[in-house]
Amino acid sequence: MSVAAVSLCWLLSPQVEAAVHSDAPQDALYRHADAPIEERVSDLVRRMTLEEKVRQLDMYSGATAIVDKHSDETHATADAVFLPEKAEALWGSLGVGAIHDLNPTPDQANTIQKWVISHNRLGIPAMFIEEGLHGFDTGTVYPAPIGLAATWNPEIARKTAEGIASEARATGVDMILAPVLDLAREPRWGRVEEDFGEDPYLTGQLGLAYVRGAQGTTLNTDHSVVAEPKHFAGHGSPEGGTNTSPVHIGERELRMVMLKSFEPAFREGHAMSVMAAYHEIDGIPVTADPLLFETILRKEWGFKGFVLSDLGAIERLYNAHHVAATPKDAVCLANRSGVDMQFYDFHHDVYQQALIDCVHDESIPESDLDYAVRAVLRVKFELGLFDHPYVAPALNSSVHRSQAHLDVSLESARESMTLLKNEGGLLPLSKSTRHIAVIGPNGDVARYGDYERESNGERISILQGVRTLLPSASVTFSNGDDIAAAVAQAKSADVAILALGERQGISGEGFDRSNLDLPGKQEQLLEAVAATGKPIVLVLENGRPLTIGWAKEHIPAILEAWYPGEFGGRAVAETLFGDNNPGGKLTITFPRSTGQLPDFYNADPTRVRKYVDDDGKPLFPFGYGLSYTAFSFANLTAQPPTPGTRGGVEVSVDVTNSGDRAGDEVAQLYLRQDTSSVETPERSLKGFERIHLAPHETRTVHFTIPIHELEIWNAEGKWVVEPGFYTLWAGGDSQAQLTTKFVLKH
Amino acid sequence: MSVAAVSLCWLLSPQVEAAVHSDAPQDALYRHADAPIEERVSDLVRRMTLEEKVRQLDMYSGATAIVDKHSDETHATADAVFLPEKAEALWGSLGVGAIHDLNPTPDQANTIQKWVISHNRLGIPAMFIEEGLHGFDTGTVYPAPIGLAATWNPEIARKTAEGIASEARATGVDMILAPVLDLAREPRWGRVEEDFGEDPYLTGQLGLAYVRGAQGTTLNTDHSVVAEPKHFAGHGSPEGGTNTSPVHIGERELRMVMLKSFEPAFREGHAMSVMAAYHEIDGIPVTADPLLFETILRKEWGFKGFVLSDLGAIERLYNAHHVAATPKDAVCLANRSGVDMQFYDFHHDVYQQALIDCVHDESIPESDLDYAVRAVLRVKFELGLFDHPYVAPALNSSVHRSQAHLDVSLESARESMTLLKNEGGLLPLSKSTRHIAVIGPNGDVARYGDYERESNGERISILQGVRTLLPSASVTFSNGDDIAAAVAQAKSADVAILALGERQGISGEGFDRSNLDLPGKQEQLLEAVAATGKPIVLVLENGRPLTIGWAKEHIPAILEAWYPGEFGGRAVAETLFGDNNPGGKLTITFPRSTGQLPDFYNADPTRVRKYVDDDGKPLFPFGYGLSYTAFSFANLTAQPPTPGTRGGVEVSVDVTNSGDRAGDEVAQLYLRQDTSSVETPERSLKGFERIHLAPHETRTVHFTIPIHELEIWNAEGKWVVEPGFYTLWAGGDSQAQLTTKFVLKH
Repeated sequence: MSVAAVSLCWLLSPQVEAAVHSDAPQDALYRHADAPIEERVSDLVRRMTLEEKVRQLDMYSGATAIVDKHSDETHATADAVFLPEKAEALWGSLGVGAIHDLNPTPDQANTIQKWVISHNRLGIPAMFIEEGLHGFDTGTVYPAPIGLAATWNPEIARKTAEGIASEARATGVDMILAPVLDLAREPRWGRVEEDFGEDPYLTGQLGLAYVRGAQGTTLNTDHSVVAEPKHFAGHGSPEGGTNTSPVHIGERELRMVMLKSFEPAFREGHAMSVMAAYHEIDGIPVTADPLLFETILRKEWGFKGFVLSDLGAIERLYNAHHVAATPKDAVCLANRSGVDMQFYDFHHDVYQQALIDCVHDESIPESDLDYAVRAVLRVKFELGLFDHPYVAPALNSSVHRSQAHLDVSLESARESMTLLKNEGGLLPLSKSTRHIAVIGPNGDVARYGDYERESNGERISILQGVRTLLPSASVTFSNGDDIAAAVAQAKSADVAILALGERQGISGEGFDRSNLDLPGKQEQLLEAVAATGKPIVLVLENGRPLTIGWAKEHIPAILEAWYPGEFGGRAVAETLFGDNNPGGKLTITFPRSTGQLPDFYNADPTRVRKYVDDDGKPLFPFGYGLSYTAFSFANLTAQPPTPGTRGGVEVSVDVTNSGDRAGDEVAQLYLRQDTSSVETPERSLKGFERIHLAPHETRTVHFTIPIHELEIWNAEGKWVVEPGFYTLWAGGDSQAQLTTKFVLKH
Repeated sequence: MSVAAVSLCWLLSPQVEAAVHSDAPQDALYRHADAPIEERVSDLVRRMTLEEKVRQLDMYSGATAIVDKHSDETHATADAVFLPEKAEALWGSLGVGAIHDLNPTPDQANTIQKWVISHNRLGIPAMFIEEGLHGFDTGTVYPAPIGLAATWNPEIARKTAEGIASEARATGVDMILAPVLDLAREPRWGRVEEDFGEDPYLTGQLGLAYVRGAQGTTLNTDHSVVAEPKHFAGHGSPEGGTNTSPVHIGERELRMVMLKSFEPAFREGHAMSVMAAYHEIDGIPVTADPLLFETILRKEWGFKGFVLSDLGAIERLYNAHHVAATPKDAVCLANRSGVDMQFYDFHHDVYQQALIDCVHDESIPESDLDYAVRAVLRVKFELGLFDHPYVAPALNSSVHRSQAHLDVSLESARESMTLLKNEGGLLPLSKSTRHIAVIGPNGDVARYGDYERESNGERISILQGVRTLLPSASVTFSNGDDIAAAVAQAKSADVAILALGERQGISGEGFDRSNLDLPGKQEQLLEAVAATGKPIVLVLENGRPLTIGWAKEHIPAILEAWYPGEFGGRAVAETLFGDNNPGGKLTITFPRSTGQLPDFYNADPTRVRKYVDDDGKPLFPFGYGLSYTAFSFANLTAQPPTPGTRGGVEVSVDVTNSGDRAGDEVAQLYLRQDTSSVETPERSLKGFERIHLAPHETRTVHFTIPIHELEIWNAEGKWVVEPGFYTLWAGGDSQAQLTTKFVLKH
């Protein structure tokens, strides 16, 4: 089919016009923008046929109905053309639940939405769903989540999501597949970079901020989108560290650890969607587990949104987990377990017919199916899609890569910089340094991490960042493939900046590693350059902790930059040369070797860390990060709530910048229940605040630990707060020693 | 106190005589040897005071009441002297539950037993409990369990335990702390050598055989002892691979995997004791978990024996798990959870007073305490201790290290030899080889593994084995510390035998490793000697799988000998030179690196084994082992039981020795349920038989899979056998390809 033949506007087609709203009176209750949403949903659902209902539980590829004018291929470009004949053939006229993988222009979104609305009897709009992990499509590229988390700054997380959401909604996109709230307890796993780290409380707070940023105070705006926390739940501890492998945990660990990173996003943030994870837990595939979706998410947490399967996860019940004998069984099982919408799992015909058959043979009560349909429609109503389904085409140009968004990306990159070592105060380097060697495969490229194209954004590499900051210095570069040449290069410089770490294809989804060393010949390169005796700074851009034991011992300065977004190289340069005082903190433990995994800090007290051949201590602990100034903590006090009240534990601690340079410190508060009816972690993060202190300034930081943060899931399967002694520690990392105790009375 | 002053016979003491049976009429029911045991127990318990009862729940150190005549120190030697004054002070006159850590001579046991019986009002005897993992005290040294398991021969396991039991009972010992039925799913763990491997079915069958060997058909003999399977349950998968660390599993994995290795020992073997493990599972310390002891062991499996804590495990509830605020709480909690006897956890006064206080304040109903007391007394009655408490002193000399026992040790060692590689048929070596270099730290010492003193037994090293077998050859030895000298030694030999691996202090309880490479400079030694170009045979004696990837690629012949007992060096030499055709098989997967752990074969199908940097395949799979001949499998058939009957699945397969040399093959049968309501392993061992085949002989091996072996613990928490398709594979290792299917009907 030639493109020219289909590039006419479909709105001119009289056949299509005639099909609009044939069975939907204009005064139907569900059309009333001012009617309560639950009533609108009920009114609409009662008008729908079973065939129309199951359509709302299915997601369609947007790209399949779009043709690139230049290549004739079916994928999305800014000037790709919508093909109504193709949509007709692929999507039919019974409605479309959601459209994914299009990243439309506003015009494309409007065109398609108009077609969908006018092409189904009841005028139900589609929902556009796209990725939005740390940037939307060609929009602003923010630091990867593991870097964002290193800021320990929920406000930056909120602003990041706000930016992503507004850039997405301005193109007509209604929902993003983010944030990832899995706990990065397994550094071999390639998706660690998508996480906020290993701690449930920190992840929970950053996740809550992200959801608030994305969803705003209401979804019914032109700048907010549905957030979809994932991968619900426990995905970050796969057997062997490999993606989608089984997770070996019991219900207590699920509830007290894995789910705690999600709970605030739903109970406080009211995230309106969630993604069901691929894996099984103790033999039960998540996508077939009503405990997660029906009992916990809906009954206990009050979730009103819809559950989306991960790509192919329902089909995996049949062809991977083998808990369903047929595709139909898989579809019914997932639906019965509370999974509302498939994500390209099965062919649309197979999926929808399976749901219909399940209702007909009563393996799913129609009321249960309606429950799922209501969840999807509720979200569409809340988004305002029935009332103003189209995006204003002019909006995008003022939102896309706005200066405010770019500023947040740079701010996030700056705050994420995490200084791991600075022997003899080598850093910051003098801005009058004349000869600088930038060496390494991460030197001349902006590393973004997974779920971003490295062709997007400003792409400021470390090399470019240094050159821009020091225009009059001589800055040489080699990627280090030729180690001898790199050594020669370092010898002729005043300082060598080794830009090492990982890249897409080594880190990211599906890129699990069985060792955590610097990849390829990087260790060899590092050791050879270090042997020159020149001052060496190691800058790491990577998606997971690396076993850099040699570097820790021999390299004087190490800066962990993670994947710092499009301005990352600028933030790195500013940090190395003192324009930015680093204040980032690790949100994941750096182990010495793969042989000590798992190595998360908040293990139970009976975790033995000693090996015959290793002291078992981490290389760098959770929460760790240095500054160009120094901080001290004093006067930790704790006041438990008055018995019988709903108050929290009031805690305060004085933080002093004892150096001569302004800087940021993250005050971290850790708690342990001295004796508990079930074993509880050695210490757990229960509060944190990043503060900026002038030289020699002291500030008192206040924390309130809500009483529910003391709850444990006891042996009887109940949440309880137990009276007794509790110990607190405050400081700049998870090994904080300043301590106090409080007693909680009955 | 001088030894001379106390070496008089206590029987002469009139004070002691007067105390005998003061409140125990000779015709009391419990004294009647022919009365039913339950009635004897009831009669005795109703006569006991609370103080006497708690005595039965306590274990005392035997060594504390014994003085070495030569050193004046309190430890056991053959001619150490029992000190009644010391016993009086330490043990008092309320009875003694059990005595441990003495390894008495028969005279000592009789002397102490007489004192105990006559020194408590009701004449309750003590029970002597000692170690017996792969040998008793100074008796026969058998191969370590991981080596015994490599025989895949339950009859050898039975005979091993029978030998240990008879050597123990002949000295007056009533119970041994064995077998270890933990699953070795975590090779970093030092106790892997104590296990029968990673598979629940194989471990279950070997454990059953061991219990039958130890307990015989009745305990009331002079050659059977109580077996005490341990560490109940789940101990072999500790977090990080470190001993006693938390175990992260759910109830399904506990029941379908971890407990399956224990179940036959209790349900079929009627083991009369069990040891409660140290660790926690999902927050609940095992020692405080009534699910394990009350629900599963007693209610579901019908266990009638007593539960012993591991050394210090009850105290750990208080000082490690922190689930008890006081020692008393810890004691009550353990007792309420079904743990009957402490193992030196607390000081006797503290422990016994705690139990008394718990009864007084009703935190333990006295009926529950009685239940525990009954369990201990029942075992003593079953042992016949009330009826003939003394051992015949002459028995020991005919039993201790009898030829029959020594023969079993050698047979076990021979059958345990596991050939991992034999490129170009390098092995067996010619017996006319003139110059042989034995090199390496395991060459001139008999490695026994933990729970044995390497000063016991014949101590036949590999060097000695070779020299004895080939008296006219020139056999040189170096331990390899001087690599250059070892290289020179190899150069002047026709063949080099590298005797490498581990030793006590690197492997064994508490000796967990964070890497699995050959220890120290062994890899360097191996590579240097291999560089000579001489034929090299690598013989490994070690307690866990090692990451010998380089050796697998470059060394032509590799023999895994584990810790082969006192005749190990002989068995190794016979194997290297062809007098013994190796037929052992691995019972634990050899991983390529610690970065792929855990690497057990029977993972669920959604376990992804691929890494960016590694294909994720094991170095050597579970079940693997070569022979000097070759075997093939054909004609696998399966017949499911008639629906409604209690029959099993009848399977047969033809095994052919296709070579010119007689040899042993282990026919292995693996099963998978094609579709199941919960995810089940890719394949699981369900049958095995070691057979000896003459050259070119074919034999049909029959297996019956009992129907209960198909049970799964479903999502509703019920054991069910599900109809549908099942796939079988038969072959010589876990990667067997010969396959068939059967259908199980409703």
